[in-house]
Amino acid sequence: MNEFHIIEHYFKTLNSGSENSVKGEGVQVGIGDDCCLLEISARAQLAVSVDTLVEGVHFLENTPPELLGQRALRVCLSDLAAVAAQAKWFTLALTLPRADKAWLESFSKGLREAATKYSCTLVGGDTTRGPLTISIQVMGESAKGGALLRSGAQVGDSIYVTGSLGDAAAALAILQNELRPELKDDKAYLLERYYQPTVNFIAGRKIRALANSAIDISDGLLADLGHICTQSKVGAQIDTACLPYSDALLRSANEEQRMQWASSGGDDYELCFTVSPENCRAVDEMTLSGTLNATAIGKITEGSGVQCYQQEKLIEPPGEGYKHF
Amino acid sequence: MNEFHIIEHYFKTLNSGSENSVKGEGVQVGIGDDCCLLEISARAQLAVSVDTLVEGVHFLENTPPELLGQRALRVCLSDLAAVAAQAKWFTLALTLPRADKAWLESFSKGLREAATKYSCTLVGGDTTRGPLTISIQVMGESAKGGALLRSGAQVGDSIYVTGSLGDAAAALAILQNELRPELKDDKAYLLERYYQPTVNFIAGRKIRALANSAIDISDGLLADLGHICTQSKVGAQIDTACLPYSDALLRSANEEQRMQWASSGGDDYELCFTVSPENCRAVDEMTLSGTLNATAIGKITEGSGVQCYQQEKLIEPPGEGYKHF
Repeated sequence: MNEFHIIEHYFKTLNSGSENSVKGEGVQVGIGDDCCLLEISARAQLAVSVDTLVEGVHFLENTPPELLGQRALRVCLSDLAAVAAQAKWFTLALTLPRADKAWLESFSKGLREAATKYSCTLVGGDTTRGPLTISIQVMGESAKGGALLRSGAQVGDSIYVTGSLGDAAAALAILQNELRPELKDDKAYLLERYYQPTVNFIAGRKIRALANSAIDISDGLLADLGHICTQSKVGAQIDTACLPYSDALLRSANEEQRMQWASSGGDDYELCFTVSPENCRAVDEMTLSGTLNATAIGKITEGSGVQCYQQEKLIEPPGEGYKHF
Repeated sequence: MNEFHIIEHYFKTLNSGSENSVKGEGVQVGIGDDCCLLEISARAQLAVSVDTLVEGVHFLENTPPELLGQRALRVCLSDLAAVAAQAKWFTLALTLPRADKAWLESFSKGLREAATKYSCTLVGGDTTRGPLTISIQVMGESAKGGALLRSGAQVGDSIYVTGSLGDAAAALAILQNELRPELKDDKAYLLERYYQPTVNFIAGRKIRALANSAIDISDGLLADLGHICTQSKVGAQIDTACLPYSDALLRSANEEQRMQWASSGGDDYELCFTVSPENCRAVDEMTLSGTLNATAIGKITEGSGVQCYQQEKLIEPPGEGYKHF
């Protein structure tokens, strides 16, 4: 089995389950030439992001390849959701120690499931020999001027997060035998949150016209909200008592542990976004009616950096977020 | 030094030497947000390609990082040249064992030189910890319907290659102490051909309206011409006596060795293209006048696969091309 067999057998067939044609929407030339050729709508900009996962660093050794395929594409798509872009295409740079058929079968199955769910077509890539490394680049369309950036937060904005926080960090603790949820269903729920994080495309679209800034939480709430602060030249105050938790996490960990995972655990891929006072009502109406799952957790302030309060008392930030080096 | 320092210090400054603004042409949002946002011309398609280089597999350990930066971007840009697209942007997924300042300084210098030379702007990326792996994705614009594909070769086409073949394989032999050119200048020339392959954008543009198909030679002439044959559903005959060699290679290796390197060595990143009989005169006029450095080496035939002739005698193909697994 050589590179070309791998591409033909496992990856060229990846798109056949999608709703579009085998080739994919907007794909004039897909996998198999020197480049792919893609059509961008005249009203859109191209949004691009790349994420790399290295075995032993970003995922544990012997991670089930199907789940790895699911997770690798989802975490990368999350960056498109965070700027409120629409997913279109992706490329895969896959480095493998050896051409293992069972591994490739399973990995490509997971990748196909995520690609189908989020209507994203594989258009190219490179398979190389070496230590297991997965680098995915996603490409999407963003309406001109309609992207949600990190740099738009304004003093007085309310800070929201979607969904619940800390679940993925709890899952990692389960995988490392540091946490044993009493309920089997809670364990399964938390692991699914880690392996198959929801990509918040729907939430991103709903808040696009209302929010001033947004980011997806990959390194931890404090670190990622910190990026919004740095790039918007503002500070932030959050009330840790407001952090949203899943029922599974509430049942599986105490308050201190939850708060630390929610603040610094990362890997949840929820959106953190800021909304000016005049738009808060519209956001709150969506959350009350159940059309948007989001929670207000604080305010954008003058100054710099993120300050944590617990019921109006300033506290030390619980942890620091993921350090890449 | 963390991931953000690396990006700020070594990579955000990468574009400041380019002729365009710091941000780069067509870049609405560059490095530093969840995605970059790019403007595609309404008359163009997006051309995308990705290439991964793994230490110990695609380059030797202790390769000077500046040369690695030069080479990594150039080999990837070569895919854009092969479809006659114009280089615009690239992303970098860089996996490093540790954040080594001297290494990063030198690598980013080489990357900057290649990016400036070919007017390609770094718009995003990911830096991660792990075994040294460089994955670059290039993006360019291709006039709608104007791309040169692998699939367009026709029976009766003449086969051409640009420049000279076998130089990069000779350089690799030098690096592995298997070849010692007598002249210092020859050694320097061959090494430069390996580390800083010319990206054939100019040749690509010149042949775009004349050629039926094209590919860049990364895995070796026989392997890459084989891709044209497979995708065009044709065969090919080449005359090994016609293969073009540099003076440095002619002085440094015997005929058998040259022929093997030229046929199977890869890494030269010259273009191989096919031209219908009615367009051959125009190509030949350019080569005679010196405006295109290309050599006719054979014909597209019915059937499949590449057959090698040496002065009208069928011979065994000299080698098989680079095997990725």
